[in-house]
Amino acid sequence: MVLLRESVGQVLRRARTEQSRTLRDVARDARVSLGYLSEVERGHKEASSELLNSICEALGLTLGSLMAEVTHEITSAETATLVVVDAA
Amino acid sequence: MVLLRESVGQVLRRARTEQSRTLRDVARDARVSLGYLSEVERGHKEASSELLNSICEALGLTLGSLMAEVTHEITSAETATLVVVDAA
Repeated sequence: MVLLRESVGQVLRRARTEQSRTLRDVARDARVSLGYLSEVERGHKEASSELLNSICEALGLTLGSLMAEVTHEITSAETATLVVVDAA
Repeated sequence: MVLLRESVGQVLRRARTEQSRTLRDVARDARVSLGYLSEVERGHKEASSELLNSICEALGLTLGSLMAEVTHEITSAETATLVVVDAA
C-alpha cells in the first residue's frame, strides 16, 4: 500500500539533498525542529499542512510543484504494484 | 496560503457528491466515523495516510488519481494568487 506521507517524505528528502543542504539548515529555515523534519522525510510522521508549507518555502518549492512530484511517485508505485499483481 | 488538507477535502467531497453518495455511506465503507470524514472533507482535519487510503478505496479512487486532482486544485489556486498579487 502506497502511503502519502512516505511519498511526501521521499520527495522532500530528494529536494533537500539535491540542494546539498543539511536537515539542520532546512529545519531552521522552515522553523521546525530537526527531529520533526527528519521524521517527516522518513515517512514516519504526517506533516501538518501548515508545516508542509513552511518546509516547501524553506526549500524554495511551491506546494503545487511538491505535490506534482509526489503524485508522480505515487502513480509510479501504484503502476509497479499492478505489474507485480498481474505477473503473479 | 493554500493548505493541502483543504484541497484534499474539496476533492474528496466532490468525488462523493458526484457519486450521489452520503457521508454516512462513504464513512461506513471506509470504516471511519462520519464525524471524521466530515471534518476531513471540510479541510478541518488532516487525514492520516492510512485513512486517506481507506476513503479513496471507498470512493473507488486510487491514491494517485486523488492526488492528481489535488495537485491540479493547488496549482490553480497558486496561479490565481499570483495573478491577484500581480494585479495589486
